[in-house]
Amino acid sequence: MQNFEYYNRTKIIFGKGTEQDAGKETAKYAKRILLHHSGGSPVKTGLLDRIKDSLKKAGVEWVELAGVLPNPRLSKVREGVELVKKEKLQFILAVGGGSVIDSSKGIAMGALYDGDVWDFYARKKTAREALPVATVLTIPAAGSESSISSVITNEEGPWKQSVNEECIRPVFSILNPELTYTLPPYQTACGVADMLAHIMERYFTKEPHVELTDELCEGAMRAIIRNARRIFSGGGEDYNARAEIMWAGSIAHNNLLSTGRIGDWASHAIEHELSAVFDIAHGAGLSIIFPAWIRYNIKEDTPRLARYAAKVWGVDGAYYDYEQAALEGVFRLKNFFRSLGLPVSFADAKLDPSRIPEMSRGALKFGSLGNYRTLTEKDVEAIYHIAAGS
Amino acid sequence: MQNFEYYNRTKIIFGKGTEQDAGKETAKYAKRILLHHSGGSPVKTGLLDRIKDSLKKAGVEWVELAGVLPNPRLSKVREGVELVKKEKLQFILAVGGGSVIDSSKGIAMGALYDGDVWDFYARKKTAREALPVATVLTIPAAGSESSISSVITNEEGPWKQSVNEECIRPVFSILNPELTYTLPPYQTACGVADMLAHIMERYFTKEPHVELTDELCEGAMRAIIRNARRIFSGGGEDYNARAEIMWAGSIAHNNLLSTGRIGDWASHAIEHELSAVFDIAHGAGLSIIFPAWIRYNIKEDTPRLARYAAKVWGVDGAYYDYEQAALEGVFRLKNFFRSLGLPVSFADAKLDPSRIPEMSRGALKFGSLGNYRTLTEKDVEAIYHIAAGS
Repeated sequence: MQNFEYYNRTKIIFGKGTEQDAGKETAKYAKRILLHHSGGSPVKTGLLDRIKDSLKKAGVEWVELAGVLPNPRLSKVREGVELVKKEKLQFILAVGGGSVIDSSKGIAMGALYDGDVWDFYARKKTAREALPVATVLTIPAAGSESSISSVITNEEGPWKQSVNEECIRPVFSILNPELTYTLPPYQTACGVADMLAHIMERYFTKEPHVELTDELCEGAMRAIIRNARRIFSGGGEDYNARAEIMWAGSIAHNNLLSTGRIGDWASHAIEHELSAVFDIAHGAGLSIIFPAWIRYNIKEDTPRLARYAAKVWGVDGAYYDYEQAALEGVFRLKNFFRSLGLPVSFADAKLDPSRIPEMSRGALKFGSLGNYRTLTEKDVEAIYHIAAGS
Repeated sequence: MQNFEYYNRTKIIFGKGTEQDAGKETAKYAKRILLHHSGGSPVKTGLLDRIKDSLKKAGVEWVELAGVLPNPRLSKVREGVELVKKEKLQFILAVGGGSVIDSSKGIAMGALYDGDVWDFYARKKTAREALPVATVLTIPAAGSESSISSVITNEEGPWKQSVNEECIRPVFSILNPELTYTLPPYQTACGVADMLAHIMERYFTKEPHVELTDELCEGAMRAIIRNARRIFSGGGEDYNARAEIMWAGSIAHNNLLSTGRIGDWASHAIEHELSAVFDIAHGAGLSIIFPAWIRYNIKEDTPRLARYAAKVWGVDGAYYDYEQAALEGVFRLKNFFRSLGLPVSFADAKLDPSRIPEMSRGALKFGSLGNYRTLTEKDVEAIYHIAAGS
């Protein structure tokens, strides 16, 4: 087991009707805030109005910035930074999913910085301070509601880059599973793929003696799989299934599950190129890439892959052949993704394989990739080709 | 699933050699501190000297208070409060196990209060502020290193009472598994019983639809059981087994595992009377009481007890008779405790059953007990009798 520090100061407020606490909790930090959202679903469902009521009651004033897109854009972050500086806002409340939250985190860093906020994503500068960010989560997926990560797309690139700094961890996050009833099935599915991937990135490690966190990872994956099936078997408004998925999405990415381990994270980098080039949803990109990544690594610590197949997918642990067991695990992972309506190949998502060389170069732009197995450009290209079925 | 708030701000610094960070971390909070410990093992092993070196290097001055006993006493807390006030200390660093940490938490509350610190434990006053407390943990057991709990024994009673307030949650805790190599087997065993009990108190709930946390509880219990066996099969200096146990002890009690659930906690209250009357170690009291508690409740949501037997103790989940499966689980729990050298009955620990009526009254002094099943004085008496084998 590796030495580690574990610290997660995000206060989680979870359950029915909890968005009513937004004003009261925000007022502990600031009286003038940026209210950041997509302008879509939270407006339509009336959620935004309820939050405004709650802010009003708590004596909090807000300036609104809407229009965040999936794969959130640098231009919107820059717009937010300018607005926050001009209006002298002290706090950012994100209402939405990972895109809105990541955009908010970018604005929070930029607000206290004189240069261009992209400097942090381009790894030219390290962010040491940011305005406090809080969230009302509407899409369980990215885990951004209690993480130190922000992923932003620079449209001029297309480059998708991440920042991971303690200063952008949300101070509180409100999670009401009822708010996810209206999610389209495809978005629910993408969220499930994203949270499973967050756990798998941590789970696939070469670090020996991580039994406790192995157990926690496996248990969380089983709970996600079972409850996703419940939702897709007609339980879109099944509060408890929605609640299990929502809380699992946070736990998947709050770093408890990686304590003592070295995670891999190659699949995320490989996927980021995919969604930057094709503007596909991150979760859908992961459902294409992750099975291909496992398939490519089938001889890399095969006993761990076989354990994964046994513990997470119920493959008979007494297989004589670990590799066959591991392959059966990949098969079931793909079947599961398919059953949620997710793509598991380039063809499923109508992606053009001719962009593979370009994406392979892109994925390696900061040097080598992955820890479970270190990948070169050639490896990444091979993984894209497995995913493309070519 | 219940609505919940989850917030745990303790920074965990985990791994080999981490006690060297004590000074640097403390200096972020204060320059004059109380250094609180038992005066026993940390002195003998040289740990205390290493911590003093680290404090010196960081420019932190300390006043020392030793002599904390297991089942920590009110008199020592009062002595600490007086000392902290006289010396105008700003921070308390606990070096030791749950007893030293709980004593430190008591002192931290008392330091900012004009009345008698027992008022908080007697539930006459609610603690809203306390000096910051931090810990260097030497005994994985109580989970006090990141919890909001402090349990103190009033020698004039004997009453053992707890306070649970956010203001006494440690700001940081240093966990180096190497420091536990020298623990006597009995103390290691008591710690294992304590952390298992912390999870079982949370696990045994009537709340339906808590699949994710069920999985996390079961996984943590399995990891504890397996790694305890490794230590007791001759691996006292097995770093990884010690590390799994140490981190599991924190996770068992940092409240993540109870999110969305209503825990029981009757066994703890029943045990507190036992260790207050007989001055037996808390973990040893729990290994006597918990199997009796399950046995008494065997018809209370039997499917959950059978699931516990299957998932945690490997009892065949396909038993036709849930009650038989559940009983087999109790049998294996007792066997496990016995294999660690722990008592599982009054006779094992040479306790006098004639004190049962007095303890039963004591356990109920604040009204009813337990949530999985609400216990009356008669119920508690019956549980003591099962434990006494009478």
